[in-house]
Formats: sequence, C-alpha cells, structure tokens
Amino acid sequence: MRVDLNSDIGESFGAYTIGQDPILLTHITSANVACGFHAGDPGVMRTTVATAKEHGVAVGAHPGFPDLVGFGRRELQATPREVEDFVVYQIGALAAIAATQGMRLQHVKPHGALFNMAVRDAALADAIARATVAVDRSLILFGLPGSELIAAGRRAGLRTASEVFADRAYEPDGTLVSRRKPGAVIHEANEVVQRVVRMATERTVVAVNGSVVGLELDTICVHGDTPGAAELTARIRGALGAAGVDVRAVGA
Amino acid sequence: MRVDLNSDIGESFGAYTIGQDPILLTHITSANVACGFHAGDPGVMRTTVATAKEHGVAVGAHPGFPDLVGFGRRELQATPREVEDFVVYQIGALAAIAATQGMRLQHVKPHGALFNMAVRDAALADAIARATVAVDRSLILFGLPGSELIAAGRRAGLRTASEVFADRAYEPDGTLVSRRKPGAVIHEANEVVQRVVRMATERTVVAVNGSVVGLELDTICVHGDTPGAAELTARIRGALGAAGVDVRAVGA
Amino acid sequence: MRVDLNSDIGESFGAYTIGQDPILLTHITSANVACGFHAGDPGVMRTTVATAKEHGVAVGAHPGFPDLVGFGRRELQATPREVEDFVVYQIGALAAIAATQGMRLQHVKPHGALFNMAVRDAALADAIARATVAVDRSLILFGLPGSELIAAGRRAGLRTASEVFADRAYEPDGTLVSRRKPGAVIHEANEVVQRVVRMATERTVVAVNGSVVGLELDTICVHGDTPGAAELTARIRGALGAAGVDVRAVGA
Amino acid sequence: MRVDLNSDIGESFGAYTIGQDPILLTHITSANVACGFHAGDPGVMRTTVATAKEHGVAVGAHPGFPDLVGFGRRELQATPREVEDFVVYQIGALAAIAATQGMRLQHVKPHGALFNMAVRDAALADAIARATVAVDRSLILFGLPGSELIAAGRRAGLRTASEVFADRAYEPDGTLVSRRKPGAVIHEANEVVQRVVRMATERTVVAVNGSVVGLELDTICVHGDTPGAAELTARIRGALGAAGVDVRAVGA
Repeated sequence: MRVDLNSDIGESFGAYTIGQDPILLTHITSANVACGFHAGDPGVMRTTVATAKEHGVAVGAHPGFPDLVGFGRRELQATPREVEDFVVYQIGALAAIAATQGMRLQHVKPHGALFNMAVRDAALADAIARATVAVDRSLILFGLPGSELIAAGRRAGLRTASEVFADRAYEPDGTLVSRRKPGAVIHEANEVVQRVVRMATERTVVAVNGSVVGLELDTICVHGDTPGAAELTARIRGALGAAGVDVRAVGA
Repeated sequence: MRVDLNSDIGESFGAYTIGQDPILLTHITSANVACGFHAGDPGVMRTTVATAKEHGVAVGAHPGFPDLVGFGRRELQATPREVEDFVVYQIGALAAIAATQGMRLQHVKPHGALFNMAVRDAALADAIARATVAVDRSLILFGLPGSELIAAGRRAGLRTASEVFADRAYEPDGTLVSRRKPGAVIHEANEVVQRVVRMATERTVVAVNGSVVGLELDTICVHGDTPGAAELTARIRGALGAAGVDVRAVGA
Repeated sequence: MRVDLNSDIGESFGAYTIGQDPILLTHITSANVACGFHAGDPGVMRTTVATAKEHGVAVGAHPGFPDLVGFGRRELQATPREVEDFVVYQIGALAAIAATQGMRLQHVKPHGALFNMAVRDAALADAIARATVAVDRSLILFGLPGSELIAAGRRAGLRTASEVFADRAYEPDGTLVSRRKPGAVIHEANEVVQRVVRMATERTVVAVNGSVVGLELDTICVHGDTPGAAELTARIRGALGAAGVDVRAVGA
Repeated sequence: MRVDLNSDIGESFGAYTIGQDPILLTHITSANVACGFHAGDPGVMRTTVATAKEHGVAVGAHPGFPDLVGFGRRELQATPREVEDFVVYQIGALAAIAATQGMRLQHVKPHGALFNMAVRDAALADAIARATVAVDRSLILFGLPGSELIAAGRRAGLRTASEVFADRAYEPDGTLVSRRKPGAVIHEANEVVQRVVRMATERTVVAVNGSVVGLELDTICVHGDTPGAAELTARIRGALGAAGVDVRAVGA
C-alpha cells in the first residue's frame, strides 16, 4: 500500500501571494510547480523548489497556458505545435531553477485548462508527451486514469502516474463528476479523509450513485487553494499513516 | 588567427518577424538566441535553434529584461537576486528547446540594457555569472573586454569570451564610443569589413583619434537588425576567410 | 452608391513593425486600430491615430483577446463578463489616445478570434455590444451581416455596419467560405478589384457555385498584412472612384 | 479644516487578491485605482469603481510602469514620450470603465517607481502632466508637495493636490525620510493617528529631529497593503471626525 500526495504549489506571482505553500509542503510528497505562464515567476519558482527540497518533497513542472490574468483556467485554441513548444519552454525553465537548488524534476502535470483539454484531445496530449520526452525521458507524466494524456504518455514511452482527486465526486464509470453538477466537490473534511484512505488502501471510491468503483491510482491530488487546505492535508497525511499506507513520491 | 562571429538571432515574436536570421545564420558561427522575455517565443526559439543547427552555428542564451514592448533596451532597476532568477529561467528554457533539437548551449550573452548595465555594475554582473554557473558551468560568458561581466565570469570560474563590435567606433582606451556621440556607429560597409579583418588578424583597431589600440577579443558581434546586415555579414565572413582567419565558434 | 473601406491598422508593437499602414491610410476611409491586447502599444496607437487624422481616415477600436503571442487569433474561453470588461478597457484606452490627437472614435470592430466567435455566440456578442454602448452609444458596431454581433448591436440600440471582405469567397447563402476550404481567399488582384466594384455598385457577389448572391453591406474590409496589400487597396480605391462610388467613412 | 483621505485600491489581479479594499473603501474619500499595467485588470477595475461609488468614494487613475511582476516598484528608463503615451492609455482605460459605472475620474496619481521618479525628474513629470491634460484637463494631479510633479501639473494648468503620508517620517525640510533609513515608516498606530490629526488640523508634522515642520497638504495617503491597514484607517477617519475635520474628496 503506497501512494503519492501531490498538490499545485508555487502559484504566487510578484507581490501576489496565493495558497499555503509552506504548510502544504510539510505534508505532501510531490509538488506541481507553476512555471511562470499561468502563475509563478522565477523568484517564486526558486523559493518553492528550495522549500520543497527542505521538506523532501519531489518537484515537477506544472506548465499552463500563457494566460496569467485567467490563471490558466481558460481554454485557449493553441495548436499542438504551440503547446509542445511552450511545454518544453516551461519544463526547461523550471528544470534549470531546480538544478540551481540541487534538485531534478520528477514529473510533469499540465495545469488547469491544459490539463482538462488533454483528457480528451489526443493531439494535444501527444504534444505534451512529446515535449516531456524531448526534454527528459525519465520524467513521469501525471494524468487522469483513462485520459488521452496517460495514453499519450505511454505511446511516447514515458512512465505515467494516474491521479485521483481527494475532494472530487466520481461517476460510476470512474470519471470525475463534472464541476457543473451539484455535489462535484466534497467539502466535508471527514468525508474527504475517509475517501482518501479508502482510495489508498482499497483502490476504490464510492461513486455518486452509491456503487463502489475501482480506481487506478498512483497519486492523490489535494487542493491547496481552498480554505482549510493545509489542515485538511495534514489530516489526510496523518490518516494515511495511521492506516499503514506508505506515502511517498511516485518517483522515489 | 581565429575568431568567432556572433549575432543576435531569434528576435521575432508571434506574428512579428524581425531581422534576417535565415541569411545571417549562413555566415555567423555563434547565435545569441532571445529567450522570450525581451523578444522571441517558444516557437521562434525552436525554429531558430533548428536553423542554427542546420548551418553548424553554435547557440547561446541571450537573456534580457522582461520588457517586450521595450525590446529589453530600457534599464530596469531589478535586484541582483531578480536578475539571477530570470537569467536562470531564460537559460533553462532555451537549453530545453535546444535539447529537443539535439543541441547544447555554448554560451550566455545578456541582451540590451542588461548587457550594458553589466559592463559597470559588479553586483549585477555577479548575478548573471552565478546564474550561468548554476545552470551549467561549461557555458562561456560573453562580455565587453574589461567589463564587470567578464570579471564576474572569471570570479565565478566560467570561461569567458571578450567581444568586440564590427560597426562600433572605439575610444583610445579601448572602450566603445558612446552611442550618444556622433560617429559611434560606422555605417560605411567597406570600412566595417576592413576593421573586422584588422581586429581578427592584428587584434587592433584604429580609435576615433587615429591611434592604434590593442583589443582583447574572442568574438566579433555583427548586427542583424540594420539594413544590409546580411550582405555585410557575408562580406565580413568572406574577407576573414580571404585573410586566412579561422572563423569558428568560440566553443568549437 | 456609397461604401466605406476599412482595414486593420496599428498592429505594430514596440520594436516590431507589421503591415503597410502609411500607404494603406492614404486609401481607406475607416481604420480599425489595435488597442494593445493582441497588437499595438500606446505609442503605436498614438502615431496610428495621428496618421489617420492626417489622411482624413476615421478611427475605430479593434479590441482583441489578451494574447499578444497569438496575435488574438486563437479562441479563448473567456466569459461574457470578462469580454465585456476588456472591450470597455480597450475602447477607453484608444478613445483617450484619440482625444489627445483631437479625434473621436467612430466605430468598434472586434479582432480575430473574438470577431469570429461573435459571429455565432450571442452571449459574447451581447457582451461586446454592452461594452460599446456603455462607453459611447454613438459608436458604430462593425460585424458580418447576419451575425450575432450585428443582432446584438441592434438589440443594444447601436448603429451597426455590415462588413464584407474584398478577398474572401462567399457561399450561396451569403456566408464566408471557411478558411479551411480551398478557394476561401481570392489571391488574383484583378478579380478582387472586380468583386469589390460589384459589391459596391450592385450589392451582390458571385458565390463559389457561380450563383449571384445579394449582400447587405456598409463597409468593405481590405487586408493590410498580405504582400501587395497597399497596391491592391490603391487599385480598389481607384476602381471604386471610376465606377462612381462615393467612398466615405460609415460615420461621415 | 478639510482634508481628503486617499489610498491605493484595486491592486488585485486575476485570481490574486491583495489589499483590504472593501473595508478601506468605507473609510477613505479618494481611491487611486490601478489600471492594469502594474496591478489590476479590467474586471478588478470595474468592481473597484463600483464599490467606490457605493461608498461615495471618488476615483482616480493610478497609472504605473508596465511591470506586473515588479508591481510597478522598479524604476524603468522609459522616455518621457513613452510615459506620456502609457499614462494616457491607462487613464483612458479606467475612465471608460468608470463611465460604465456612472462615475467620472477625479484625479491622477502615478504609482510606485513612476511616482518616485516624478518627484525629481522634470521631463517625466511634464510627460505625466501632459498626458493628464490631454485626456481631461479637469483631472486633479496628486503629488508630493515641492515635487517636480506638482510643478509640472501647475505648468500644464492642472489643479494639483499636495499629498502627505500618514505613516511616514519627515525630515526637518518637509521631505520624506528615505525608506533606506531606520524609522522611515511609523508602525505604532496611536502615533500614526495623532500625526494625521495634527497634519489635518495644524498643517504641521513633528520631524525626525523633533522640530515642528509646516506641511502643504490637500490629501493624506493611507496604505492599504500593511497588516491592520483597514483598522488603522477606520481609527484615522474616526479621529479626524472627532477633531472636527471635514474629511472629503479633494474634488468634492
């Protein structure tokens, strides 16, 4: 029984602080570090990697669309070629910053709208996988189980990690309940903790219709930008430990 | 008798084309590639590196201030820490793009206002040198002979390359005539060609007062953004060859 | 027989020059001026308005998505609220610059992907119309005849101007042939000139299947970013004059 | 006895929230609204103006350098021409947004490094004054008493407002103690409140050497980005009222 806990980290920018990185980094095992296009800046990236290193947290690139004002959450009709280029750029920028801190990147996880589009758009997913392979073929590609992104990673010869979400509801077929539906996000902390423990120990989740669904999973994403995120993550980490789960970075 | 010919390349951006890169790249031996902050974008960077590779031209990072509308030509009072961070970021981004084309970076040359400030500002120069060392200590740092940048590179243990300018007038002490003075830039093509040959074969230049000045030089910068730049560069390359000069990238 | 000739103008940015504005502005009657989000910068906007004024050309705002590297040509899933806000912002910025030159804005024409999305997306079209009304209800809204944008403009109480394209092929139903189809753009100059004269004098066009289609039109768009654009525009202007067409800005 | 209380407002950006605008706007009388170059975005600008209107707070443009990552706090060697153009642009953008909320701009106050440079650089100050006049000559220009900016505003025929700072120490000559010196900022709330009351009622301040210095002042700036800023501002407003000072926007 082993699992990775990941979170989006390093999303501050210039004078703007967002998230609860210092606390989160004491509980998670993999940090998805923003690379300056949708969030983050070179200084934030450096301090983020340095703090991650201090806590033994693995770091990965979290490339996004070049849309700072939209925080990378808006779909942009970029071509696969454009996506490939800017993913390479962002991975490279973070890799260099990590190198200055004596760290190597462990993984790549696209951010926001890019992540969502790569679930279903094979050409885009292939572009992300190609970018990742081209920079460093030892990088692990994070994606939704069953997504085009995971398929593209495998086609490209990359190691992949299937990701589930601590606070999201699931359909009976194992896909996420759309955020447009009520109940898509689980807000009750106890329930989130219990679900995570079940995910990690049984590789199952109770879907919205009450059925028990099997989940392929290597890493569990916890959100860092919600109120109480740090406390919740601490509880999740504690409960996993109590349940005998080995919480460790996917690449460790 | 050996010299490198370098030029600023890859300064196009999105729908905007600038410079005469395809022709210049057939004549120079080192390309200073813009990294997306003052010019260039991930796609332009890729095609630039690919074209450089095709012509056997070495590539280096040309990091600049985050000032696209000012083309990196305006001084910005960034701290040494900020400069170090964004130079690392830009070198890393280009290094990754170069890797996708099977290329490694040869050198680093700051752009525009950053270059000019690093001539005289030791703290800034040290920041650039630290950034370079931190990413890859085999990178060669380009700078004005006698500048703080060259001194900083040496302090940091980097190999450095002293750079002279094909079309700039020199003071009797070997420094550049300020652009604010008349005659700072030499426009007559024949004169530029003769000066370059003299620089490469004798390591001297005739200063504005007629005196002959010794020049420390490893690489000669030719400008790519002036009318007739491509033709002039072709003539320079031809004249150097005719004079028996070995025109070769500094790191080759 | 009266018609307006419009073109996208002022798309240069910083050190980057694009288009043939000085010549185009001697032939057109309405200039769609980029407002700094997809192209243009405050200095370019000022010189563009000044040159337009010199030639008696009316100026309008050409707001686009905040996507400089994509030149505003990529669809971005911004909300109607976001679009309304940034259209107000861009119109206001240009209106102030125009005021410094003693000019008032005549019209608003969305750019690129925003223009295309507003053809079919009523909520987006309403957002653009609301933005326009809110800043100045005397502004004329340019759009494709039959588009949601024209409908939205009318709903909002704006004067609208139906726009046809000098060099685009038309379907039998009066819509543009998709750029993904062969023959969507007419490259032969003589043919373009003849079509424009027919559009202006008969309000018809010969569609791709040879049928003659009626066109509602107040203004004809000529492209400024293609080779030979300035010469072609000069010929169009000349031919319209020879045909007795009164070429004048829509708001004049 | 009358005074204006102003604060920098609307500095949030996209997903990033900064400051305590909703509370501050219940206590101040003039809001300096960021215009999207160093902070703020079109949506933030709109909600800021709307909230200001709700509380009867006058709004002004707070234009800054195009340096989002540096929050406009870094000096940029832009030319007066460039500054004039981007100040016009920013005032115009905010004026249009204000118009959509039924508000007119009251004033212009440059932000950060631009403000600081305009204290001593007459050419830059003139550029800002020219920009302001060109957009709307009824706008009031805020600046340090004795600064080049106030002088430029007067030369340009603008109404000006001299601004003092609630929490800054003063030299015996009435200038601000440099932030590089210890004691430049007064952190003790009671002391700040007492100083503000003295400023408003006696037009004097106790300088760092204990001498009493006369102050020319029309408006007092309170900082919104420090911890406890909202509470402090509430106390300042209350104390001014208790002292019989008429707290009102300069233009009211």
